[in-house]
Amino acid sequence: MEKGSIQRWRFQGNKELASASSISTTIQGVLSSLKQNLNQNDTRPAIPLGKGDPSAFPSFQTTSVAEDAIVDAVRSSMYNSYAPTVGILPARRAIADYLNRDLPYKLTPDDVYLTPGCTQAIKIILTVLTRPGANILLPRPGFPFFEACTARNHVEIRHFDLLPEKGWEVDLDAVEALADENTVAVVLINPGNPCGNVFTYQHLHKIAETARKLGIMVIADEEYQHLTFGSNPSVPMGVFGSIVPVVTLGSISKRWMVPGWRIGWLVTSDPDGILQKSGIVDSIKDCLNFSSDPATFIQGAIPQILEKTKEDFFSKTNSLLREAANICYDTIKEIPCLACPYKPEAAMFVMVRASSFLSSLLEKMNVYIYDIFTNFCSRSSWNYRCWKALTMTWNSLLSWLKRNQLLYYQE
Amino acid sequence: MEKGSIQRWRFQGNKELASASSISTTIQGVLSSLKQNLNQNDTRPAIPLGKGDPSAFPSFQTTSVAEDAIVDAVRSSMYNSYAPTVGILPARRAIADYLNRDLPYKLTPDDVYLTPGCTQAIKIILTVLTRPGANILLPRPGFPFFEACTARNHVEIRHFDLLPEKGWEVDLDAVEALADENTVAVVLINPGNPCGNVFTYQHLHKIAETARKLGIMVIADEEYQHLTFGSNPSVPMGVFGSIVPVVTLGSISKRWMVPGWRIGWLVTSDPDGILQKSGIVDSIKDCLNFSSDPATFIQGAIPQILEKTKEDFFSKTNSLLREAANICYDTIKEIPCLACPYKPEAAMFVMVRASSFLSSLLEKMNVYIYDIFTNFCSRSSWNYRCWKALTMTWNSLLSWLKRNQLLYYQE
Ligand SMILES: Cc1ncc(COP(=O)(O)O)c(C=O)c1O
Ligand SMILES: Cc1ncc(COP(=O)(O)O)c(C=O)c1O
Repeated sequence: MEKGSIQRWRFQGNKELASASSISTTIQGVLSSLKQNLNQNDTRPAIPLGKGDPSAFPSFQTTSVAEDAIVDAVRSSMYNSYAPTVGILPARRAIADYLNRDLPYKLTPDDVYLTPGCTQAIKIILTVLTRPGANILLPRPGFPFFEACTARNHVEIRHFDLLPEKGWEVDLDAVEALADENTVAVVLINPGNPCGNVFTYQHLHKIAETARKLGIMVIADEEYQHLTFGSNPSVPMGVFGSIVPVVTLGSISKRWMVPGWRIGWLVTSDPDGILQKSGIVDSIKDCLNFSSDPATFIQGAIPQILEKTKEDFFSKTNSLLREAANICYDTIKEIPCLACPYKPEAAMFVMVRASSFLSSLLEKMNVYIYDIFTNFCSRSSWNYRCWKALTMTWNSLLSWLKRNQLLYYQE
Repeated sequence: MEKGSIQRWRFQGNKELASASSISTTIQGVLSSLKQNLNQNDTRPAIPLGKGDPSAFPSFQTTSVAEDAIVDAVRSSMYNSYAPTVGILPARRAIADYLNRDLPYKLTPDDVYLTPGCTQAIKIILTVLTRPGANILLPRPGFPFFEACTARNHVEIRHFDLLPEKGWEVDLDAVEALADENTVAVVLINPGNPCGNVFTYQHLHKIAETARKLGIMVIADEEYQHLTFGSNPSVPMGVFGSIVPVVTLGSISKRWMVPGWRIGWLVTSDPDGILQKSGIVDSIKDCLNFSSDPATFIQGAIPQILEKTKEDFFSKTNSLLREAANICYDTIKEIPCLACPYKPEAAMFVMVRASSFLSSLLEKMNVYIYDIFTNFCSRSSWNYRCWKALTMTWNSLLSWLKRNQLLYYQE
């Protein structure tokens, strides 16, 4: 065929991918398109509100303990090779030990699988659970990556509500009503994104009993574990592993303020071996054969990071977040058309009840807000009965800006 | 339901995953099961032959330039945040510049997508190409991850042979005979794994013309680009991007001896915008929304790694590999029942023609070889007309052991 002649090419894009990753379901997608649409001629500082990434803010920087651990691991030259697909043993052991501090029984390293962040842990467990006709129960509001991945795996999504009037507890009646013989799991995000709530021990216990009754497993996204600053202590769902098998997902992204490091875990709390017997554990391992691993030297740094980080680093973060939550709560109260009945006590988000308030907010803040109000409205699981999610970090930023009379450095 | 009563759980493992990741198709799977089956009471040193991971060997260590780049990036605190899903701009630009050294036209950063290694780049392009009824042409012998991923995506695999009598060139007649209107792409691995060959400019040109005639794209796995030590220079397939759209996959894993760092790229060589128009580019971006990113600070280190590494680091590696190839070739000639008609001139593998030689080989070497001969036989695409693949690095190890009268430290 001559060059320049009309050529028929036989390949084409994959439309399924497009619908699953559509802008209304992945946060990254929303943010990318927003950034592209920023008015370059507007000189006001732009504040990135859109994702739970505090590391962009000067007041939320990681500890030197974590940096040192990485430097030591790289300099050792011991971690340049491919890692086993489940992760290297010292890292798995360190994560088991770290989680065991809050559990009534002992996880072993074999219960722990390393993933590049909690995101990939979500992807893995949802891929494992895929089967024709299956459905899964997701919280509303929730974390849209669950919706995106579930859609991608052709699993039916059934949403249950979190109840604002009950401090964002799970509507357990709805869970029971939604489940049928094709339901495989219920997803919890605790501490909550975007609600900033923490489930009590009693509530988690009830969820465990309900899941057991329904014969479904619990997937507990504990990305914000220990990032709490209210009265409820954060109890890991794994505590109830002998009532119902639990798959816990987490990472160092938020607690250590290093989401760019891409290391997290998928952990099976399965003292009765149910996940083993039902083939879930084997499927997790199969899935890991196709998945990418966290960089080996970052795995190598994990023991030092988890064991050596000082308590005051964590308490400083939590008091900053508490301060941000307070400012946020108080500021919102002053803004016409906004309400915030539940003051967050965990994570880095607050749910705000909204009407047509955008202009007054913009006026008040005199900064350029490029996300939530105009955009997260399109994200189904957050656009819930007029509630909108708001990342809290901007408030701490705002006060920092005011204190320092500086403008924010825009990425 | 009471604890202890017979409980029906509704979830189960995903059998599809099991068959796709089956031991016969992923190298990681083979290796894991082999290691588990090692006789712990055997005191002979075990040599890990199974994968192209030279970093396990004392003679193949990365350059301090690369380590320094990582340390600088971590210490800067500039790369702790989430990265854009396509990768950070400085890294994309550095990779474009790096590849442009060998191309007749200029790639821009927009042609470059960062992935956690070439492995994930393979996974992404195969996911993008998935559509009902599609088939893809894969080389035999080849790299089994292509087979595993293709199976997982329900795309039909059609194997064309590489011809040992022609220095492992592509059987282009077979390619033409295999392709039909549902064929979407042909995969090349050049420099070759496991054959250790390098395609000539003329041969690549013919492949490009054939693919154009068939209306299919070329996926060029150039993981071993520049790891050449024979007479054929390694020409990137992207050179022929104006004949046929090319998607090039690569990484720093092998050339820098850091496969554990998990950073690579997917690059579109598409001067006529065909991949754009056919929706492939959009699908790549959609797919990246679900995929994991390389750690941001490793992305941040890429410009320094690609720009600052000295030529003598590369030439030292290549002469070590040449030496290994020579030892390998000569040693094999001495071993009864083994033949090696083609001396490798690239990468880190050699294809050996074998019969029932295992015992004599073991005797000769007096070490415990736990992989290829007994096991890669089960990996369909390498078990090709009595040819077996052999990683070359063991030879350099062997000579190192002899020189230093040391035993190899077993991982
Ligand atoms: C609820 C929840 N789960 C998971 C993640 C993913 O985090 P990572 O992959 O960085 O661990 C996030 C990030 O914002 C989150 O908010
Ligand atoms: C031909 C080929 N492609 C891709 C890869 C994947 O390498 P990585 O993901 O480390 O870049 C390998 C590794 O052995 C390989 O041999």
